[in-house]
Amino acid sequence: MITLDAAREMIAVARAKGREMGLKPLSVCVLDAGGNLLAFEREDGASPGRFEIARAKAYGAVMLGMPGSAQMARAEAQAYFMAAVNGAFGGKVVPVPGGVLVLRDGAVVGAVGVTGDTSDNDAAAAVAGIAAAGFEALA
Amino acid sequence: MITLDAAREMIAVARAKGREMGLKPLSVCVLDAGGNLLAFEREDGASPGRFEIARAKAYGAVMLGMPGSAQMARAEAQAYFMAAVNGAFGGKVVPVPGGVLVLRDGAVVGAVGVTGDTSDNDAAAAVAGIAAAGFEALA
Amino acid sequence: MITLDAAREMIAVARAKGREMGLKPLSVCVLDAGGNLLAFEREDGASPGRFEIARAKAYGAVMLGMPGSAQMARAEAQAYFMAAVNGAFGGKVVPVPGGVLVLRDGAVVGAVGVTGDTSDNDAAAAVAGIAAAGFEALA
Amino acid sequence: MITLDAAREMIAVARAKGREMGLKPLSVCVLDAGGNLLAFEREDGASPGRFEIARAKAYGAVMLGMPGSAQMARAEAQAYFMAAVNGAFGGKVVPVPGGVLVLRDGAVVGAVGVTGDTSDNDAAAAVAGIAAAGFEALA
Repeated sequence: MITLDAAREMIAVARAKGREMGLKPLSVCVLDAGGNLLAFEREDGASPGRFEIARAKAYGAVMLGMPGSAQMARAEAQAYFMAAVNGAFGGKVVPVPGGVLVLRDGAVVGAVGVTGDTSDNDAAAAVAGIAAAGFEALA
Repeated sequence: MITLDAAREMIAVARAKGREMGLKPLSVCVLDAGGNLLAFEREDGASPGRFEIARAKAYGAVMLGMPGSAQMARAEAQAYFMAAVNGAFGGKVVPVPGGVLVLRDGAVVGAVGVTGDTSDNDAAAAVAGIAAAGFEALA
Repeated sequence: MITLDAAREMIAVARAKGREMGLKPLSVCVLDAGGNLLAFEREDGASPGRFEIARAKAYGAVMLGMPGSAQMARAEAQAYFMAAVNGAFGGKVVPVPGGVLVLRDGAVVGAVGVTGDTSDNDAAAAVAGIAAAGFEALA
Repeated sequence: MITLDAAREMIAVARAKGREMGLKPLSVCVLDAGGNLLAFEREDGASPGRFEIARAKAYGAVMLGMPGSAQMARAEAQAYFMAAVNGAFGGKVVPVPGGVLVLRDGAVVGAVGVTGDTSDNDAAAAVAGIAAAGFEALA
């Protein structure tokens, strides 16, 4: 289980990582093991729709049990499949890096979604936040 | 404009007010002047769907320019009108107290949505957060 | 956490309770703590749309942390509020008895939704199933 | 017509087939001839969103009268057509193997949807379940 304190730590460290790497303004969300929102922050200067993107990266990861990188590989191999999956989840899945699974003792306990810079940089910021809070990250 | 730092201050003080008043676990969101999410936190022990409620309280306030109390008065006088409004906004409006407008110099710059306790207590927590961040609150 | 074996036990006993009470054909679903489906069975003779009703009873219970009876009380006192809540959850909330919370050590770990007979009989069947599987029920 | 007992037999044997083949945790649903849910089970360890995938595989099969393999062939030849079909069905169609038609005397009486392993393995588990319950399978 991810407590709110742990979720806040993930967001704070993901954002600090973004500043350290010189990334554009980031938006960071943390979902629980059921895909429901625990916490979110959108940095000043980010575009207004960033919550939907951040959540969709994390939501697909939790619901499918696949991090964004694996979803992207599947989308590139079989685009219509990921498009259909998105439909099955009401349009709430964005299959690119930056949706990172949060695990404890090998079990998925939630996901972090980051958006704002390149997908790979977004994922790096998420991983930093998850590790700082004492969880394993699967990006 | 509400910066992320100001939004975080609103959430922190709304949550502290909830603890001071002995309220149930709160969920608090801050939306910008366009109705888009800036920040959200769900306290431990709150039910998993609280984000949708918190956002819907704040969203209706911003989009209609009416705080939750005014929306509730309208709903009680003319239930079908608020039901229809809700349909027009894709089901994202919950017309009860706890959706509080954030103003500066008389202009709406966003809204805070709080859920978890009674609607009136939710609104009191939101007002405390908004005032602490240096804005005017219209509940 | 509710295992699949426990969910199957809940369904089997809820159905047996329905036969013992002489109820109409029942449909029974079990959701996890995040509102996602674990198991479902629709008895022969039930109308085809019963899954949506059973899930919506259980889904509202989990997402709001309120059993169906409490949702119904709120709907009767403030109909527009529960209508709006339903909108916020994409139409997936049916606020009547038969949506029963499943708890362990006082924490919500899921919900059972039953539909087919009167709402109170539906709830009685759900409670029987939850108790048989060794959990606490809040109807 | 598929009775609930037959649906439960399909699920039990599909799951047993998965264990025999050493597959990942499976989620299995059975729909009736109208595309409505009869029964579902999600094995422990499967990700929480598996119901939506399992149902979408089976739903497309019933509604179009085409098993997942034929839908996939069409999607690979004409991706926009299956995307548009998915839109017409509210996003509830996932066109890959694992959506298997259930027939009796040559007439479609429902479909089984399986997800969790590769699409072809999912389909093999579904076929085993359908055959064990005394129906013909079209994968």
